[in-house]
Amino acid sequence: MSPSTTLNPARMIAELKELRALTGDEHGAQRLAWTEPWARARAWMAEKLAELPVEVETDEAGNVWATLRGESDQALLIGSHLDSVPNGGWLDGCLGVLAGLEVLRRIATEGTPPITIRLVDWADEEGARFGRSVFGSSAFSGFMDPEELAARRDYAGTPMSEALAAYGVDLQRAKLAGRQAASAAAYLELHIEQGPVLEGLGLPLGVVVGTFGVERHSITFTGQAAHAGSTPMGQRRDAFAAAAKLGLEIRPIAMRHGGVCTVGSCVTRPGIMTAVAGECVISLDQRHVDADALAAMLEEAKDAAARYAAEEGCEVAWERIWRIEPIPFHPELIDMGEAAIRAVSGSAFRLPSGPLHDAAEVARIGIPTVMLFVQSLGGISHNKIEDTLEEHLALSVRALDRLATSTIAWIRG
Amino acid sequence: MSPSTTLNPARMIAELKELRALTGDEHGAQRLAWTEPWARARAWMAEKLAELPVEVETDEAGNVWATLRGESDQALLIGSHLDSVPNGGWLDGCLGVLAGLEVLRRIATEGTPPITIRLVDWADEEGARFGRSVFGSSAFSGFMDPEELAARRDYAGTPMSEALAAYGVDLQRAKLAGRQAASAAAYLELHIEQGPVLEGLGLPLGVVVGTFGVERHSITFTGQAAHAGSTPMGQRRDAFAAAAKLGLEIRPIAMRHGGVCTVGSCVTRPGIMTAVAGECVISLDQRHVDADALAAMLEEAKDAAARYAAEEGCEVAWERIWRIEPIPFHPELIDMGEAAIRAVSGSAFRLPSGPLHDAAEVARIGIPTVMLFVQSLGGISHNKIEDTLEEHLALSVRALDRLATSTIAWIRG
Repeated sequence: MSPSTTLNPARMIAELKELRALTGDEHGAQRLAWTEPWARARAWMAEKLAELPVEVETDEAGNVWATLRGESDQALLIGSHLDSVPNGGWLDGCLGVLAGLEVLRRIATEGTPPITIRLVDWADEEGARFGRSVFGSSAFSGFMDPEELAARRDYAGTPMSEALAAYGVDLQRAKLAGRQAASAAAYLELHIEQGPVLEGLGLPLGVVVGTFGVERHSITFTGQAAHAGSTPMGQRRDAFAAAAKLGLEIRPIAMRHGGVCTVGSCVTRPGIMTAVAGECVISLDQRHVDADALAAMLEEAKDAAARYAAEEGCEVAWERIWRIEPIPFHPELIDMGEAAIRAVSGSAFRLPSGPLHDAAEVARIGIPTVMLFVQSLGGISHNKIEDTLEEHLALSVRALDRLATSTIAWIRG
Repeated sequence: MSPSTTLNPARMIAELKELRALTGDEHGAQRLAWTEPWARARAWMAEKLAELPVEVETDEAGNVWATLRGESDQALLIGSHLDSVPNGGWLDGCLGVLAGLEVLRRIATEGTPPITIRLVDWADEEGARFGRSVFGSSAFSGFMDPEELAARRDYAGTPMSEALAAYGVDLQRAKLAGRQAASAAAYLELHIEQGPVLEGLGLPLGVVVGTFGVERHSITFTGQAAHAGSTPMGQRRDAFAAAAKLGLEIRPIAMRHGGVCTVGSCVTRPGIMTAVAGECVISLDQRHVDADALAAMLEEAKDAAARYAAEEGCEVAWERIWRIEPIPFHPELIDMGEAAIRAVSGSAFRLPSGPLHDAAEVARIGIPTVMLFVQSLGGISHNKIEDTLEEHLALSVRALDRLATSTIAWIRG
């Protein structure tokens, strides 16, 4: 039986729509982790899994594992996340889970597989409620710090530990999820691109070479608040002006190195119309697939900030909010992903992932990993208008299925 | 008797310190209008006035008038405001009132003056609680709109009408304060500069030629919120970048025309570190003493905003928040102010006022008006570190006194 005989992309698309109807509203998907619609999505998923010869368990971090026992304990992991941001799109995360479900079905129809196949629905990839993304997969990888998270609260003041406890997760025990890694031989994840690159190239699919390294800083320029009417232009120490200069300069820095730099937040103080800003705090998010290039982008931004601060008579202070190194995916799996894409769509393209993904957490502990991206229309995600052509969705599950087959063969050696 | 024989600048300085001790704390002056410390300041002032042969009344807008009846009903008005911003300085406003008190005392010691002299303490010049500055003087001038103000609330949700009622002011009747203008022949006001110009020139005093015209707008750039990791630099519609460009461009615009332009507030949306700003709202405050130059600055800013919006693939929308035309002071009074300053300090300088003042409200209804500015150390005001050299404070009341004498003569014709 050829791998794709029983694979049913149309069923997957129908199930994506079923899930959208079940857990979305006129503003988009509402599967915020640790809330009722998310639990509803997981209960719906459990019904689907109940039709298959799989064992289902939830680990200490809230990740759901569906295991199809094979002849060997060595396991191919396929996964993504059912949770969404509030007012999210219909594909971000759940595509990978439902495509994995479809692949699992196809394999299950063929009898006991040579190795074990495990579908994972990671808990709280988005981090939308408590600001900590890839929660479940970082518990799995061991890069999650329960002490740091315990202090977090949502907008309503609910402690993270309390919200998780309501879903059976004890934050202090969550890293026991790492035990799930014991037999893992490879990890595959299909996800929408969430960017405009594939659409720009006219390609349905791409293979992901790794996730960007990220540097996130909060930068505070301090000048002198002064009366907007009585302070001549030449005698100002304008913190907003210094920040504006840096906000523009990060763009040539990013272009020079082929990375991305973003000032997404800008806050002025006193922040009133009638006063020169005495303080301006901006965020800077820098990403690059290469660690040295990322370091150079950061260095150049720091030099520029110091220069602009001096020009404007301001002080500048940097605070690192977060960083992660670039995480490359597995070279052989990248080759196999490319071959799978080529087989279903004729041409393939390699690209890095700007967004973080659960796959990066898996890869960073040495489990051979690769991701496939499918084109996002308009490059838009985290929005109800997020969309992908249905023909591309169908191609994407076919590519994942082929990749699963070749990866099983690769694991068996 | 020469005009300055009984004038006592040292007493004025002592009284300024007395008021500071009575109504300030370690954070600065706390004479926020329509609060207890402000009422305390006014009660203290009433005790000072009780020692003089003056009639004291409070008008419908809460302005306090002390009237020294003269041989004629024609009145010279001298005034300023006792109210301060929260955590304000020790001189902003109250200097003009206490200097006026000192001049009134000097005139009163000389018997019945040839014309009537009226000292006015305007109510709520700062507008710090309800965002409406020059409240009392705009009720006097008739440029205050009770309907618009009735809807305002302070940070605690108290309606403006309710707060004023607690101090005996009925917002709907406040414009009856305009009756006080009937016999007014001229208005004089001494104020700290609140800017660095006089200090930069090494001059203690300057005569004010008028107040700047002001254009205040809220400018919204709308681009496309996009993922900071997955959106290549060349495919962004970055609203913050467009706003940053405008925030820098307003500076050469201001310099070219000799005015001032300020972006004091910048708000990004969604305003998170991981998303390109889809929307950025900045404030723009533009001021110029010349109406045509002000209009040109606004036009150039609009052109620049449209250009930058186009460059960044954004839309731009302008909303006018407020405007006031430039208000020139009276040419003969300006000459007399300059002469008075020259007489007490040797040299004089003419400058426009960037900040608004009660004097502008008086001038705009045709009452001949002029202001004197005394140097502010560091150009700083609205801050507890606001300060002026005591020798300059002494010169300032001497100059006001001389100007009062020449203005009385000028009124008598």
